[in-house]
Amino acid sequence: MRTLEEHRAAVEARINDWCGALPPAALYEPMAYLMRLPAKRVRPVATLMACEALGGDPKSALDVALGVELFHNFTLMHDDIMDRSPTRRGQPTVHVRWNENTAILSGDAMLVKAYQCMGADPRVLQVFNRYALEVCEGQDMDMAFEHRGGVGAEEYMAMIRRKTAVLLACAFELGAIKAGGQEGQQAALGRFGEKLGLAFQLRDDHIDAFGDPRVTGKQRGGDLRAGKKTWLLIRGLELEQGTGALTEAMQQASVARDIGAMIDALVRLGVRDASDALIRSLEEQAMAQLDALGVPEPRKAPLRALALGLMGRSA
Amino acid sequence: MRTLEEHRAAVEARINDWCGALPPAALYEPMAYLMRLPAKRVRPVATLMACEALGGDPKSALDVALGVELFHNFTLMHDDIMDRSPTRRGQPTVHVRWNENTAILSGDAMLVKAYQCMGADPRVLQVFNRYALEVCEGQDMDMAFEHRGGVGAEEYMAMIRRKTAVLLACAFELGAIKAGGQEGQQAALGRFGEKLGLAFQLRDDHIDAFGDPRVTGKQRGGDLRAGKKTWLLIRGLELEQGTGALTEAMQQASVARDIGAMIDALVRLGVRDASDALIRSLEEQAMAQLDALGVPEPRKAPLRALALGLMGRSA
Repeated sequence: MRTLEEHRAAVEARINDWCGALPPAALYEPMAYLMRLPAKRVRPVATLMACEALGGDPKSALDVALGVELFHNFTLMHDDIMDRSPTRRGQPTVHVRWNENTAILSGDAMLVKAYQCMGADPRVLQVFNRYALEVCEGQDMDMAFEHRGGVGAEEYMAMIRRKTAVLLACAFELGAIKAGGQEGQQAALGRFGEKLGLAFQLRDDHIDAFGDPRVTGKQRGGDLRAGKKTWLLIRGLELEQGTGALTEAMQQASVARDIGAMIDALVRLGVRDASDALIRSLEEQAMAQLDALGVPEPRKAPLRALALGLMGRSA
Repeated sequence: MRTLEEHRAAVEARINDWCGALPPAALYEPMAYLMRLPAKRVRPVATLMACEALGGDPKSALDVALGVELFHNFTLMHDDIMDRSPTRRGQPTVHVRWNENTAILSGDAMLVKAYQCMGADPRVLQVFNRYALEVCEGQDMDMAFEHRGGVGAEEYMAMIRRKTAVLLACAFELGAIKAGGQEGQQAALGRFGEKLGLAFQLRDDHIDAFGDPRVTGKQRGGDLRAGKKTWLLIRGLELEQGTGALTEAMQQASVARDIGAMIDALVRLGVRDASDALIRSLEEQAMAQLDALGVPEPRKAPLRALALGLMGRSA
């Protein structure tokens, strides 16, 4: 069994080859620019790991893994236009470095390139088509939520499931398919990826609000300060039930630029504990899927290591 | 053999079913809006005709034909953003009626939907992937040409080949593949579509400048007045060779808002005759491909009728 680092190195090498083989036309430059920015490559690594866990040769899943990473970067290129994001991975976004039209068109071509990597396997295409649409639906829900009040915690979970979790599910499922895995194994790995993706996203928001800056190395409450609607805020507004405990703290924060009162309110409302419990539950649900795979324990070890790494715990 | 109208009716019925089966989510509304605007459906009809000409059942090509029309409309949705076009087929464009983000995202999902229609046939996907990239490259060249001088007639032809002609080539080739046609037949139908697409585009520009308003029903010189870089203008600038005959007329036109002098200059420079000759030559090259198909004459009759219709001549 290969280690996470070995899989990642294989992905990086494939990405490098792919970028090097692009035609010189202006349309392709932004693709190489975005693909070459340093990234964790969680999704393509997930594909290779799932393939190997079910007894397949991870090399046979390398193109599909590349396709998943291309799709992910296509969504980043277009989401950054829609969200007016100036930077991505510490560098200017494509629509800032080039222009909006180039980001639209290069993203379009990148989606075609992702399909090129997927090949013509009916099982692969069925899964990819379905999840690709769900990712678009997730971005649509996310944008709609920004412009309306009263978004509930359940709706929010449905949004991040589509927007971020399903692509990890897709990555694992495609690896299972390339290994020739059974449908039950494919489905179990899909659920593993989905629960893990949800847990990871919620944990990201949790750490932003409650993490120790000495450990995270980041200023606390960046999301809260930016007014980002996270699960924490949405659940907090549900729990304050007319007391206005959180709403008041939010108004205070927007005036005094101090989010200490907001964090206190979230703790008092029990949101920190609820978030903690939800993350642990999702993590357990994810890990339980591995038991359903029906493969020997050593084959699952890299998947566990990947999951623990994503959840900020060493293996 | 079915008539053009019968094929078109089959396409319209399939589009109607497809629109009716879309999920109610906001993401899908703009797709149905654009697909339901009255259109000639030349590309999907081409797919069905090619399939039947080679002895296939056109019904077997209906989903692929729908995929071609979805892809075409996806490019319209995104091109209209890039070109800042307010109307499409006499109605507000998607980014005007909704907003730019919706047009980006709905277009993305529409491309996925087009792939869904293509299925998992390796021959279909290979052709579609290749041509889809060429269409993106064509739009990229088109935008680049708007911002630079000195574009040559050959470059211009390379641009419209990618931007408009290859999708007609793609439509015919996919029909050939669905009929189980030989590679030589597929290639001949591809060239048929490409030459026809080029001739059609050039003819469109030709009529705008030299057509009889009593016949066309449109004011003469709309493109010239809008400053659009057509083949006529590009070839005219090549032919004036330092005499400035056309450049002068263009300056006059932009001041006096009269394009009569431009049209006169184009005629004197021989551009009208050259355009006429080029269109006829492309048309002949297209028709010659039908001889290479190796199928009985009656099977080719609908293809000839489609071509004559596109070239503004009754069959």
